[in-house]
Amino acid sequence: MDALLLGADLEAGRRLMARLEAFADFTDEPRRLTRLFLSESHRRAAQAFIGWCGETGLQAKIDAAGNVVARYEGKRAGAPALMLGSHIDTVRDAGKYDGNYGALAALAVVEALSARDERLDHAIEIVAFGDEEGVRFRTTLTGSRALAGSYPEDVLDQKDAQGVLMRDALVSFGGDPERAGSIRRSDVVAFVEAHIEQGPRLEAEGLPLGVVTAINGATRLEVAVDGVAGHAGATPMNLRQDALTAAAEMVLSIEGCARREPDLVATVGRLEVWPGAANVIPGHIQFSIDLRAPSDLNRVAALGDVEARIFAIAATRGVRVSIAKSHEANAYVCDPNIVAGLAQAVETVGVPPRFLPSGAGHDTMAMGKLCPAGMLFVRCKGGVSHNPLESITVEDCAIGLKALTQFVRDFRAD
Amino acid sequence: MDALLLGADLEAGRRLMARLEAFADFTDEPRRLTRLFLSESHRRAAQAFIGWCGETGLQAKIDAAGNVVARYEGKRAGAPALMLGSHIDTVRDAGKYDGNYGALAALAVVEALSARDERLDHAIEIVAFGDEEGVRFRTTLTGSRALAGSYPEDVLDQKDAQGVLMRDALVSFGGDPERAGSIRRSDVVAFVEAHIEQGPRLEAEGLPLGVVTAINGATRLEVAVDGVAGHAGATPMNLRQDALTAAAEMVLSIEGCARREPDLVATVGRLEVWPGAANVIPGHIQFSIDLRAPSDLNRVAALGDVEARIFAIAATRGVRVSIAKSHEANAYVCDPNIVAGLAQAVETVGVPPRFLPSGAGHDTMAMGKLCPAGMLFVRCKGGVSHNPLESITVEDCAIGLKALTQFVRDFRAD
Repeated sequence: MDALLLGADLEAGRRLMARLEAFADFTDEPRRLTRLFLSESHRRAAQAFIGWCGETGLQAKIDAAGNVVARYEGKRAGAPALMLGSHIDTVRDAGKYDGNYGALAALAVVEALSARDERLDHAIEIVAFGDEEGVRFRTTLTGSRALAGSYPEDVLDQKDAQGVLMRDALVSFGGDPERAGSIRRSDVVAFVEAHIEQGPRLEAEGLPLGVVTAINGATRLEVAVDGVAGHAGATPMNLRQDALTAAAEMVLSIEGCARREPDLVATVGRLEVWPGAANVIPGHIQFSIDLRAPSDLNRVAALGDVEARIFAIAATRGVRVSIAKSHEANAYVCDPNIVAGLAQAVETVGVPPRFLPSGAGHDTMAMGKLCPAGMLFVRCKGGVSHNPLESITVEDCAIGLKALTQFVRDFRAD
Repeated sequence: MDALLLGADLEAGRRLMARLEAFADFTDEPRRLTRLFLSESHRRAAQAFIGWCGETGLQAKIDAAGNVVARYEGKRAGAPALMLGSHIDTVRDAGKYDGNYGALAALAVVEALSARDERLDHAIEIVAFGDEEGVRFRTTLTGSRALAGSYPEDVLDQKDAQGVLMRDALVSFGGDPERAGSIRRSDVVAFVEAHIEQGPRLEAEGLPLGVVTAINGATRLEVAVDGVAGHAGATPMNLRQDALTAAAEMVLSIEGCARREPDLVATVGRLEVWPGAANVIPGHIQFSIDLRAPSDLNRVAALGDVEARIFAIAATRGVRVSIAKSHEANAYVCDPNIVAGLAQAVETVGVPPRFLPSGAGHDTMAMGKLCPAGMLFVRCKGGVSHNPLESITVEDCAIGLKALTQFVRDFRAD
């Protein structure tokens, strides 16, 4: 079975690719894509998005929580809405497709309908969430949580590394911190997010699209290791309490725990060393652990295992350790009807449906608390994301857009 | 045998302790001692040192390489000089005694002689070297190497982290980069450096003083590990090329190599992670290795072992690695006559002489290329150095000063 790409489909794919390329110019840093939540480049990206909506006759606006939202009415004004979208914030030194693909593909679906003035039984709403990567503030998904009625208002007093309050940044962006907690949507009947896979499974199987069954649960821990700093030349090996060698053993034991459990992943992505001089034995280490699994039970069991090993290593090496939980989210099982509808659409455009879990977290997790929700994955090169090497082909871009459009046309709010 | 401390000796020890305390106020950072080579706080410390020399009638000056040097004439003007001193730069967040003890003890010896207008057959020169810790620029011992006639002129074009040229910093400090390479001393007949031990051996044996037999050879390596950054949630464990877990295995293998060889020490003191976000698999790691041993043969053998293991780990894990040598110094065997003279002085002040190697590098290594040289170690609490917890007792401070003075009085240039 081959993907059914007509010339017009490919043309739409090329336009979407060109727009993704242009959109990547909105960055906080020269020569690399860094678009943090509520930053100046995020503001300019949101304004460009609003402008593009306007070109197709949609009145988009920034909502209280910093999302861009636009509505394409159905046959009947005020009909319940199918919401499509993803996020437009990025990590530092990011790729061009993570988040942006789903936001701009949503707009492209509406452009395709609008070009023929095709109206459906339901309205379509497009959303470009602002806070998915959680890089600037210690928050994540505040945009989608606002729409789902679970806005965490205490986060407004968080400060970024420069001391800027999230509350003030939200005002500058065009949001409204006073109202962000009260914009829950009651008229959205389903949410679908297209997104690059960010993993290597589709590529390995030669498939351009995947239908997400569940989003892995995740726990994030912050570990502090306290040893004793000392002179690198004058302290015999047997009298050291080296915080870094202890942390190295912990890092490897975390990897070992994750390797024993299929589908479970654990990552130490940040590790900082004090004082950090070549001739000083490290006295203090701080590192993050990110642990994810499709099964909440497996994740919690692995967490217990990881913590026990860390404490055992600290005891053996005579260093002190503390572990704090900075984030925890249970797995989200996608709505069976959305999953079936996406599988049908994928099949209709000529691709055998492949069901797979998402290792990464997504706004869909938050939206799933409001309404039936699901995700469509598009193959990305090497499974690489959060990296400038992130890459998708024009063909995959096009077939993803075609499947999403198919889903939207076939969708029945019942 | 008890250390022979009279009331006057203790009083001199207290004055030296008070001066070390006052000297620690010269810092680049509030609330912790950081006095980097040629920094503003180094300049102010050097001026204070010059001021204290002036109070005892010595005309001190900053030489071309950034050392403070002062001369106390002997019975005959222009006699050959015994040089005493140590360095006054520090690591970041340093203790008060490393280096500073030896520089200020040298001054205290001359103050004691000068107070009684006691003139010896030889002159005494006091030196406060500026560049021992090697924190600011990728250099070390440039001050002592200048006096020894082995000034590395190419280092003048090195830049610090702020982009300041060492050449310019030396001019601002009062030095003379054009002349730094030509101030080799021909009239210095011996060099002795008093220094805290920076290790725990004297404390373990209940001894206040130690006579250094040799200074360990050292090699410093810079290791770069290149893996593939990726999404922490979406990349299965078996498809990762995680630079940090590879580096962690290297760190532990380095520790293992060092533990197998007595007297050899190896330290990873600096380790940096890119991009360093909790949700991104680390793609690049850079770390330092500091390896030291009293036997050059053992050190070179261990280096080969360490490098082979690092390459093997990289191959197994599918990451790339490069290793560069940033520093290498052979072990320095102290002059036998100086060692014997220091042992005699130590015994005279009532302490059984303990001979031991130095794990840390010192300016004595460079001065040993010019003239006979040696070191006197003073016990420090817990063997801790390069740390604000660095500590010595007033009694040990006093007995160190007394032994050094004794050595100077008994010294014969022959």
